[in-house]
Amino acid sequence: MTRVAVLAGGVGAARFLDGLVRVVPPSDVTAIVNVGDDMEWAGLHISPDLDTITYTLSDLVNPETGWGLRGESRRTLDRLSELGGPDWFMIGDLDLATHLYRTHRLSAGDTLSDITRDLTARLGLECVITPVTDDRLRTVVCADAGELAFQDYFVRRRASDAVHSLRFDGAESAQPAPFVRDALASADAIVIAPSNPFLSIDPLLSVSGVRELVRSSKHKVAAVSPIIGGQAVKGPAADILQSLGHDVSALGVARIYAELANVFILDQEDASLAPAIETETGMRVVVMPTLMIDVDAKMALASGTLKAVLDAA
Amino acid sequence: MTRVAVLAGGVGAARFLDGLVRVVPPSDVTAIVNVGDDMEWAGLHISPDLDTITYTLSDLVNPETGWGLRGESRRTLDRLSELGGPDWFMIGDLDLATHLYRTHRLSAGDTLSDITRDLTARLGLECVITPVTDDRLRTVVCADAGELAFQDYFVRRRASDAVHSLRFDGAESAQPAPFVRDALASADAIVIAPSNPFLSIDPLLSVSGVRELVRSSKHKVAAVSPIIGGQAVKGPAADILQSLGHDVSALGVARIYAELANVFILDQEDASLAPAIETETGMRVVVMPTLMIDVDAKMALASGTLKAVLDAA
Repeated sequence: MTRVAVLAGGVGAARFLDGLVRVVPPSDVTAIVNVGDDMEWAGLHISPDLDTITYTLSDLVNPETGWGLRGESRRTLDRLSELGGPDWFMIGDLDLATHLYRTHRLSAGDTLSDITRDLTARLGLECVITPVTDDRLRTVVCADAGELAFQDYFVRRRASDAVHSLRFDGAESAQPAPFVRDALASADAIVIAPSNPFLSIDPLLSVSGVRELVRSSKHKVAAVSPIIGGQAVKGPAADILQSLGHDVSALGVARIYAELANVFILDQEDASLAPAIETETGMRVVVMPTLMIDVDAKMALASGTLKAVLDAA
Repeated sequence: MTRVAVLAGGVGAARFLDGLVRVVPPSDVTAIVNVGDDMEWAGLHISPDLDTITYTLSDLVNPETGWGLRGESRRTLDRLSELGGPDWFMIGDLDLATHLYRTHRLSAGDTLSDITRDLTARLGLECVITPVTDDRLRTVVCADAGELAFQDYFVRRRASDAVHSLRFDGAESAQPAPFVRDALASADAIVIAPSNPFLSIDPLLSVSGVRELVRSSKHKVAAVSPIIGGQAVKGPAADILQSLGHDVSALGVARIYAELANVFILDQEDASLAPAIETETGMRVVVMPTLMIDVDAKMALASGTLKAVLDAA
């Protein structure tokens, strides 16, 4: 039995988890998911990262985008647009049901982690998917245009603003959700998924005690680089590395994770960076293909990562 | 120019208004609409009576039901049901857009009357449709099962509980929406639509000053009976008349409106009740067909009602 806890953002983490639950029993996996991207939209509570992971693991995800649902339609959104309502955030008719369900239960006083547990159980998932916190946590992007709510920056403005800094509203008082501490403490391996270090992983770590728990478990932590050949596989990670003054490379990412991880998973394309990363960060670097182009690639990355961290521990 | 203000509930009022705007210029018509039926559903603010009237007047209504939209689908609701969410209140995919639009703007601090004005303008309506109040007002049904929220009684439990009494939560502090006082004061005719006297009209009258304004305008007020041959055309009005100890007849309704109206519009089927109503209530009774089976019938009822109240004034 190898219990694995994964610090997870959206699409990259979802794909990694999709491989992981095929190489270890799903019930041994806990995904601890970012909620800094959550938003209120027309009265509904939307949790994009929780949904991306849930949809991916239940094989409902739209494979073209990596988020949203397969066979989705936009009848409501098109009508909302005709009425002059907010239409910049794509919400399909099926996806909407998830947000209505979640909001309905939140209004009834249930916690986001309880709701997520019931939703994932209803979809037949055996792994644990939990928000990092049941408390309010919101990523705020500071840019030339001022402070932007995360989805405003990410979707409405298409992540085109240079990011000067980030803050996580609510982090000072947010407590970990019920299973988070236990999952980290009892894990045989903790994986920092190939997610955006600033937008996905940092908000997770900002929740009370989480960074400390990961740091004190460093011997069993692997981080998977989301940067390949100086570029992000998806999203604005490279731009943010640059605008925040980091090296736009896997080395730049490795420096960020040096205090937290024992093992760094580097894409084969970046193999030449391995010595520098080992020397500079003290992490053990393991080189492998990290591009998750199909199920086999996802499984190979998950098992390779697990093996690396268990070997090094 | 004949300015008409209509105290309006849902389907019956919507049909009356649909006739009215064809016999006087729509811009001379103000519908003052019940919001006691409003509800919060999964975080969304739903205003069933405002929507029924708006959809009817913009020719979008489902003619089979008298509420909801034509060509509606239930993709989101079916999915919500699969997820184990609340599915007893029928909300179609197109209808949902209205609730999202309204809730989005309410969250932004706009008033229900402003939102309704913009929605109706967007749909090309020239009449004024206004909630009776922008404040919170909720009809609560007291039955054997305890206190029931209105839609719980009406939809979920199919109006099957005997109603012991009704109260209107928020009525003590609710103020009329901006155009309500003016519309009533400046109207040449005020019509109490053929709506449920207890569930639709009473909550309207419970808003601060509205009952007094109508009463003091009694000389220009006509009430249209929603009861024909001892039965409600639609909904539980007859059952409620009975359970609250009223006569289950147009006479029972006439007694309720005696203090407010000068003219009572009685269906031809109930013509024999006219003398008793005139004697007992002092209202002038005008007999005509009141069943709004088609556009011609709606127009005839609207023009007949207007003529009766203007003649009597």
